[in-house]
Amino acid sequence: MKKKIAVVLAGCGVYDGAEIHEAVFTLLAIARHGAVSQCFAPDIKQHHVVNHLTGEVVPETRNVLVEAARIARGKIKPLSQLDAVAFDAVIFPGGFGVAKNLCTFAFDGADCQVNPEVEQTIRTAVKAGKPVGALCISPVLLAKVLEGVEVTIGNDAGTAAALRQMGARHTETSHGEVVIDRKFKAVTTPCYMLDASIDQIADGADAVVRALLDLM
Amino acid sequence: MKKKIAVVLAGCGVYDGAEIHEAVFTLLAIARHGAVSQCFAPDIKQHHVVNHLTGEVVPETRNVLVEAARIARGKIKPLSQLDAVAFDAVIFPGGFGVAKNLCTFAFDGADCQVNPEVEQTIRTAVKAGKPVGALCISPVLLAKVLEGVEVTIGNDAGTAAALRQMGARHTETSHGEVVIDRKFKAVTTPCYMLDASIDQIADGADAVVRALLDLM
Repeated sequence: MKKKIAVVLAGCGVYDGAEIHEAVFTLLAIARHGAVSQCFAPDIKQHHVVNHLTGEVVPETRNVLVEAARIARGKIKPLSQLDAVAFDAVIFPGGFGVAKNLCTFAFDGADCQVNPEVEQTIRTAVKAGKPVGALCISPVLLAKVLEGVEVTIGNDAGTAAALRQMGARHTETSHGEVVIDRKFKAVTTPCYMLDASIDQIADGADAVVRALLDLM
Repeated sequence: MKKKIAVVLAGCGVYDGAEIHEAVFTLLAIARHGAVSQCFAPDIKQHHVVNHLTGEVVPETRNVLVEAARIARGKIKPLSQLDAVAFDAVIFPGGFGVAKNLCTFAFDGADCQVNPEVEQTIRTAVKAGKPVGALCISPVLLAKVLEGVEVTIGNDAGTAAALRQMGARHTETSHGEVVIDRKFKAVTTPCYMLDASIDQIADGADAVVRALLDLM
């Protein structure tokens, strides 16, 4: 039986959705290690839409699930249908969409709220002993939901301070390194929270998937 | 001096733009082989917008360059600024956007028209002796512009027949295999024109980039 990993996406595009490279390399790493992936995303409106050429917010409305379907080539399900117990692990690629659509960290920092379906997914996975992975800014989700979890977002002092304010422990890391919290079976890596090249992102995603498989 | 490869994108999403996995693995392969990439896309309206969850065309308007910027994390230029002479190779990832935005193959088959900037890019590259790569459905661009070029789109009989009607030679291939036309220095591979897994797409993109580097 192949291991099954749920991949939770926050849209499609670094500035308002899922970071595309991190999402794609997560899916690649899962396949390369002989496991299978299933994508999920919340069926909600994006916080906003950003023109990725200019960086400006534009007066458009897009749906997180519908846009995430671009990364998943249509093979995606609403996050409300994710029962983490039925999977061997759950993984959250990064992107600003995580901090804007999956929680409100981009606006509220340490006081952020986490989307209820995302929170439920993390709690269910941890309760069932399933490892949870988070790339880039996604460790903020774990920090908010899992009291005292140890994570990494690389070396950004402001974000690390916010994580500590939420009760998490933060460990500095560099490219491709992971932090493993063995109590919660939480695996994190910085990816584009560092000034990284695209191959370093592939290495980071691969390292998280390997660690998740080791923890199963 | 690192080799410089121009990557031409057709939007962001398999059904109306660039196939995201093919595009990202092309960028990864370029980095892994020690070369550098620069993304380009035409600054034109997409032919249409497809909801990737349902497959339906939706009444929205999106711009090919602006959407492609999602894959490139904003680091992209209008195709009008691409001087192929200044690069060591040009590569076209696939996706329906190639057949809808970069040419009209999706609607007109062998009678398709190629976007003038795309045609100019291919002609300039070939005239300057620069290798050109094409993944998935993108070989139709080469077939239309380069009289008698040898390409592959895998094993789809209808598409292969259309390519022959355009004057191209078609060779059947399987996952990760490339066809190299040494006269035109054209390198093609089927990727998602076959029923492929995501790791096979990474292999295909890597094989094309390796062949391009060998031809330089």
